[in-house]
Amino acid sequence: MPGNSFGTLFRLTTFGESHGPAIGGVIDGMPAGIKVELDFVQFELDRRKPGQSSITSPRKESDRIEVLSGVWNQTTLGTPIGFVLYNEDQQSADYDELAEVYRPGHADEVWDKKFGIRDYRGGGRSSARETAARVAGGAFAKIVLAKVGISVQAYVHSVKHIEVPVRYDELDLNGVDNNLVRCPHEESAARMQACIEEARDSGDSVGGTIVCVCKGLPVGLGEPVFDKLHAVLAHAMLSINAAQGFELIDGFACTQLNGSENNQRPGGVSGGISNGNDLAFRVAFKPVSTIRKQQQAKNTSGEIVTLEAAGRHDPCVLPRAVPIVEAMAALVLADMQLLQIR
Amino acid sequence: MPGNSFGTLFRLTTFGESHGPAIGGVIDGMPAGIKVELDFVQFELDRRKPGQSSITSPRKESDRIEVLSGVWNQTTLGTPIGFVLYNEDQQSADYDELAEVYRPGHADEVWDKKFGIRDYRGGGRSSARETAARVAGGAFAKIVLAKVGISVQAYVHSVKHIEVPVRYDELDLNGVDNNLVRCPHEESAARMQACIEEARDSGDSVGGTIVCVCKGLPVGLGEPVFDKLHAVLAHAMLSINAAQGFELIDGFACTQLNGSENNQRPGGVSGGISNGNDLAFRVAFKPVSTIRKQQQAKNTSGEIVTLEAAGRHDPCVLPRAVPIVEAMAALVLADMQLLQIR
Amino acid sequence: MPGNSFGTLFRLTTFGESHGPAIGGVIDGMPAGIKVELDFVQFELDRRKPGQSSITSPRKESDRIEVLSGVWNQTTLGTPIGFVLYNEDQQSADYDELAEVYRPGHADEVWDKKFGIRDYRGGGRSSARETAARVAGGAFAKIVLAKVGISVQAYVHSVKHIEVPVRYDELDLNGVDNNLVRCPHEESAARMQACIEEARDSGDSVGGTIVCVCKGLPVGLGEPVFDKLHAVLAHAMLSINAAQGFELIDGFACTQLNGSENNQRPGGVSGGISNGNDLAFRVAFKPVSTIRKQQQAKNTSGEIVTLEAAGRHDPCVLPRAVPIVEAMAALVLADMQLLQIR
Amino acid sequence: MPGNSFGTLFRLTTFGESHGPAIGGVIDGMPAGIKVELDFVQFELDRRKPGQSSITSPRKESDRIEVLSGVWNQTTLGTPIGFVLYNEDQQSADYDELAEVYRPGHADEVWDKKFGIRDYRGGGRSSARETAARVAGGAFAKIVLAKVGISVQAYVHSVKHIEVPVRYDELDLNGVDNNLVRCPHEESAARMQACIEEARDSGDSVGGTIVCVCKGLPVGLGEPVFDKLHAVLAHAMLSINAAQGFELIDGFACTQLNGSENNQRPGGVSGGISNGNDLAFRVAFKPVSTIRKQQQAKNTSGEIVTLEAAGRHDPCVLPRAVPIVEAMAALVLADMQLLQIR
Repeated sequence: MPGNSFGTLFRLTTFGESHGPAIGGVIDGMPAGIKVELDFVQFELDRRKPGQSSITSPRKESDRIEVLSGVWNQTTLGTPIGFVLYNEDQQSADYDELAEVYRPGHADEVWDKKFGIRDYRGGGRSSARETAARVAGGAFAKIVLAKVGISVQAYVHSVKHIEVPVRYDELDLNGVDNNLVRCPHEESAARMQACIEEARDSGDSVGGTIVCVCKGLPVGLGEPVFDKLHAVLAHAMLSINAAQGFELIDGFACTQLNGSENNQRPGGVSGGISNGNDLAFRVAFKPVSTIRKQQQAKNTSGEIVTLEAAGRHDPCVLPRAVPIVEAMAALVLADMQLLQIR
Repeated sequence: MPGNSFGTLFRLTTFGESHGPAIGGVIDGMPAGIKVELDFVQFELDRRKPGQSSITSPRKESDRIEVLSGVWNQTTLGTPIGFVLYNEDQQSADYDELAEVYRPGHADEVWDKKFGIRDYRGGGRSSARETAARVAGGAFAKIVLAKVGISVQAYVHSVKHIEVPVRYDELDLNGVDNNLVRCPHEESAARMQACIEEARDSGDSVGGTIVCVCKGLPVGLGEPVFDKLHAVLAHAMLSINAAQGFELIDGFACTQLNGSENNQRPGGVSGGISNGNDLAFRVAFKPVSTIRKQQQAKNTSGEIVTLEAAGRHDPCVLPRAVPIVEAMAALVLADMQLLQIR
Repeated sequence: MPGNSFGTLFRLTTFGESHGPAIGGVIDGMPAGIKVELDFVQFELDRRKPGQSSITSPRKESDRIEVLSGVWNQTTLGTPIGFVLYNEDQQSADYDELAEVYRPGHADEVWDKKFGIRDYRGGGRSSARETAARVAGGAFAKIVLAKVGISVQAYVHSVKHIEVPVRYDELDLNGVDNNLVRCPHEESAARMQACIEEARDSGDSVGGTIVCVCKGLPVGLGEPVFDKLHAVLAHAMLSINAAQGFELIDGFACTQLNGSENNQRPGGVSGGISNGNDLAFRVAFKPVSTIRKQQQAKNTSGEIVTLEAAGRHDPCVLPRAVPIVEAMAALVLADMQLLQIR
Repeated sequence: MPGNSFGTLFRLTTFGESHGPAIGGVIDGMPAGIKVELDFVQFELDRRKPGQSSITSPRKESDRIEVLSGVWNQTTLGTPIGFVLYNEDQQSADYDELAEVYRPGHADEVWDKKFGIRDYRGGGRSSARETAARVAGGAFAKIVLAKVGISVQAYVHSVKHIEVPVRYDELDLNGVDNNLVRCPHEESAARMQACIEEARDSGDSVGGTIVCVCKGLPVGLGEPVFDKLHAVLAHAMLSINAAQGFELIDGFACTQLNGSENNQRPGGVSGGISNGNDLAFRVAFKPVSTIRKQQQAKNTSGEIVTLEAAGRHDPCVLPRAVPIVEAMAALVLADMQLLQIR
């Protein structure tokens, strides 16, 4: 029942169901006296919102943030930042069928069993809609990090079998938003887009991986022994809907090297502490569970029924997950930065 | 500076440097009235201790646990369990050279910069010796879990290129301790052992992956939204020395499937909550950084020097990491179980 | 910078400045499936709101709660309850003078030094307005407690020299709201009211004490050793604006008894754990610092100036503090109850 | 079941039963590079230990601290400080009678009901013996505070009806240890000693109050809104065995002043934040529950029996509580200091 807060000194708490009145959150630990452009926060939210392109869910949410506290005259007060995003496009009727059916691959059934009750409209609290609050929190974290020269940039590294053929340090990460896929390697991006469109048109979905690069880190972030920097990043990443795996760049591949070879690889952490190098990691996202194709599903009486999902879904979560990955990484780094200042 | 505690209701705090007087810890949240066989705790520690076989470090530590509180007449009191393991084989002189040299791939340099001071003897607090306290804590967690029918079993799935060719559910996991490698697929185990011996003899090291299987989980473990079960497991796993990646079984591979295919895969969590199926995950361990081969290293004056590590090290951390992976998984599950009881 | 959350498993996080857009909060840990009457929550807020009587601040705030999540069809979902109360009566101009003057007895100056910035309008975050969010959170806690038969009732025990002449167990606590003072001893209440009116009319303020009685507690609430039940209650109480002291009933008086006498007193806790008896405690509130009378004050340049406070203030905080004391006590007990269920 | 840790960034976790093998603890968050004289830590422990004078329990415990980690070459490493104090004078047989009798005023019965099991020897974990670990932790906190010029000094202000007739700022607090009572007002001390001796000789016990003075505090300690400095101090103080009340100096008395009068009182906190003045508070301790006089007691079968306590007890806890009060205050301030540095 805890579980809706993240961080120690820079802590985000979120609330809200997909089809309730609003989602929102509280950021505790935002340092005082920092200039905040709410346009920037809104910009980050717009990168995540549905309906932004032909390859995302057509659901319409303006996701307009209302900041209720903690900022006065565009400057932070050192007090908690409360914010809300009212839900707008609540076509709850779309979901009536789901009152008695558990969608395959979703949390519907376990939620019912864990809590004894479930807001079935759009997944309720288990919906990825909750991540909008994370993006808002992450935007404030990015503002904190920018003050000390730390940046966080993610991009789509692979969609299904299509993979960017070069390393992150050979890409211009400022171009991430230049295409719908948020892949800065244009040729790959075009192929990924086609792949996503095909999934969309066939009522199916596809997964992939996102790479995130953190630059400008000082030496020393990360708290031995349990809160190693990459351990907390892994926690953060796998708390994102549909995430299935995390590795420091080449984390799985390096298991096939000798130590004498691997010791040459710089990497961004040593013993769980940032070492001043760029820190890059990769997150695996499964293909979205909600698909338009007919599927067999269990209903609340335990019977198998045929489900043809209505609702308006993403054929591929990756493009919209890029700002979420960045947000969660920024939350981790801002917290570690505050922990380190002492 | 926090960072030495793990868990919310079932919480392990550890202390100790590799070559200080002792390591140890405190388990807070151990339920009262549970029968504890200290022999079992010692058994788990023996699975981790150095010097147990020809393919582990020859360092000699009896790692005998002394329980100082919380257990009376072999029964838990509901009070914190304090325990120590005195360090014995402290050949500190081996490490004098390291006072002024930073070992490649180790935390030596960042530790110096983060804390301004460093116990260079055997890595001090950054040494994997600290994980003995985790194994002790995990043993108590296993005792709690056994009461509700939950088991945690890990094994070596790959060493370098040698990989167990079958899935975890086709293996007899009770045979894990039957060979030195802790791989229950005998043919693979033999090849892995040869590979480790070759690394040992050439003064190098090799990495690999460990699979961990959790059985008997009730529906409902995991706390939305930030403390999803696999998110906390990832945190736990990547806090282990040398761990570089984490995936739910096939987490990276499933990014190449369509949603309609992937929705068939049961898996052990739905939306971050255990669903009653077996839960399996895989952890990547890099080849140990400490090798006997000559390497270039930086010294505390910033010069490049040649380092030929003395000390007594593991050519492959995997066999001894199996009980550590189990311990950390057990700590997560015991905590989640207590959180869920409410 | 943390400090805006209270509780472990039942945790309230609040946000909001007195004259910002809104105040509000998030309750994490509210159990699922509980019937919630929002009218009850509003009722509690109305007991705290300004303008409710001739002896409270005439400031007008409807303090209408808007619940944004966690409740659906009047039933809790087990998800966090986000709520807001928009600020209405923001006569910020009243406070312009305070931009450069530090009010005596207030947090103005230390806030400036701690954060380097301060929302001077009505005290900003340091205003007692923040306690409205606590009362909302406490109302939800009371709902949880009512399910297990626990009640929390406070009343004004003394105003200045006027003290209720009988013990709490000789009073009808259901009559607390029957008079403006919230003192269930009518004769004392009348004298207290006159005393408050005199302070109001002379532009001064008066303090007093509140007694709170918790009934229906099961044996076992309280967590040894640092989170003894009365220790956490003391923490909760002294976090309320203007609170200066806390004692278990007769806590200071019993220091003058012999052990053989004192051991006869039952009391509600034994060794920090509830023992099944009623638990009563007393909280001291200083006379409100904001008064209409002219005072010497320091300004931001360090000069002494004459301050005649505008704004609309309470001559005595006690009557409105009764629901705040109850709310904080309920938050503690709900949390302890959840911790104990395990 | 948590409850054995205190603090956020400077956190003490304790373990140990009165008659188990040892008590001890872990301090997490001790800054690196600080010179530590273990003699000072031992000195503080000696101020608390039993058997130190004719008016304390004759129980013999050398309370010799063994530091197991975190300090190397008398300098802190920034790693957790693990320490133990082995129990020596375990005349467990003294306590056999208590296996089936609940001592009046003690936690015996509630402990049995809360945990279903109880180490009845000397109160087990509920014994004040646990506070030795707090004094050790507090000694480290004092070392941290001394570096920034903060001191914490407590003294016995009253025993039964005998009260020091002057304010804390008129006393020479360096003389606290000059008499057995730890009261720096010699005339009062003599009368208090006689009072305690009378209680001792008649097999009874007496209570009293301790005043604690914190000097050298910077402006800014304390975290709005729930972790106000005096709120956390109250939590700390009431977690000490036998403590029944807490007030900022004159906290209860000031409820009888007008605001215009009270605003003149400087005090050490404003709005819960230290303001640079000395901070003084007072703690009420009940007369010790364990007395030699015959008492009626309940046994585990619910019958009333006559209890004549064996064991070796303090007729008055105050003299030995002085270093405990200081330790808990130092823990709070060290934590707040680290929280503030950010």
